[in-house]
Amino acid sequence: MPIFHAHVPARRYSSQQKRSLADAMNSALVEALQIPTEDRFVIISEHAEGELHLHPTFMDMQRDPIAAMFIMVCLGAHRPLEQKKALVQKLNYNAAAALKVSPDDIFITLIPVPNENFSFGRGKLQLADVAPSW
Amino acid sequence: MPIFHAHVPARRYSSQQKRSLADAMNSALVEALQIPTEDRFVIISEHAEGELHLHPTFMDMQRDPIAAMFIMVCLGAHRPLEQKKALVQKLNYNAAAALKVSPDDIFITLIPVPNENFSFGRGKLQLADVAPSW
Amino acid sequence: MPIFHAHVPARRYSSQQKRSLADAMNSALVEALQIPTEDRFVIISEHAEGELHLHPTFMDMQRDPIAAMFIMVCLGAHRPLEQKKALVQKLNYNAAAALKVSPDDIFITLIPVPNENFSFGRGKLQLADVAPSW
Repeated sequence: MPIFHAHVPARRYSSQQKRSLADAMNSALVEALQIPTEDRFVIISEHAEGELHLHPTFMDMQRDPIAAMFIMVCLGAHRPLEQKKALVQKLNYNAAAALKVSPDDIFITLIPVPNENFSFGRGKLQLADVAPSW
Repeated sequence: MPIFHAHVPARRYSSQQKRSLADAMNSALVEALQIPTEDRFVIISEHAEGELHLHPTFMDMQRDPIAAMFIMVCLGAHRPLEQKKALVQKLNYNAAAALKVSPDDIFITLIPVPNENFSFGRGKLQLADVAPSW
Repeated sequence: MPIFHAHVPARRYSSQQKRSLADAMNSALVEALQIPTEDRFVIISEHAEGELHLHPTFMDMQRDPIAAMFIMVCLGAHRPLEQKKALVQKLNYNAAAALKVSPDDIFITLIPVPNENFSFGRGKLQLADVAPSW
């Protein structure tokens, strides 16, 4: 149920590479948070010249202007810091490997959203009245 | 003031259908939360092949890979669960009807945002110093 | 570290104008919140006909349907209201000047995100274990 949204440079990655990125994000969830493999919900957006700006060196990174990307994650707000650390570590590793980019090139933002706010379909908030299990 | 952002498959829906989707989202607000009709703020993004991934069956849905979509909603954080249930129910119903897709095809995420964080224009936070009325 | 995401009409602004918009958003941060200039992280998305809907007059604005835009900002959740007011004021002023649009045409939403949720690269949550300084 975490939903991933990656913002990548336009025309840099093929459809196949985008699928690999989606797989990489999903695997990070399974590995770090033991979430079911079927919980795979991913959005990817391309951005043309002038539409994606990551500072090349801020916070002592070496970002490649034609490869660097954002990944935003709507994540259950109940996740403790230790789980978030595990997730961003796996996410960075898997995404960098899938796209053959540097670990410096991946900026991740976790947006905490309480579980009661997700509807998987049919207009129901399926997790509203149950304790969070994932 | 809730802001809707729908992520739909590229080249699947016409401009007219997108307008119908925007109308459907706005009507859901009016019907479920009695928000003024003029409070109509909608973003729609298209995603090409490999850029939109919703698992076909997770949580016992039957999602159509060429129709399924995400709708993200930045919603006033003061809304109680009962209002959120009413909103996602209407939103699902109206959007499915507008686009002639299955209720299973619409994944909705509500992102709670306190009212003091919205600027409708002119660089003011218009709702910062008033009690939430909608 | 606030991340800006502007949603603008397609083919209305050149790459150069988009760079100016990115600069304008970054300057607003520096001026209003004394954030380092190098903290420049910006996403811009274009939206075709039927994909961007801002009501022309709601909340007593005069929005131009071919110029009006959304700016979403993932902002440290520790920011008090006074800082948010200063930021949206500067952001509106700078963005309107950069694109030569009306102050009425810029709808801003601040999404508060606790600092521990940002990874600037290398899979670390760099601000997780330090007091917020910016």
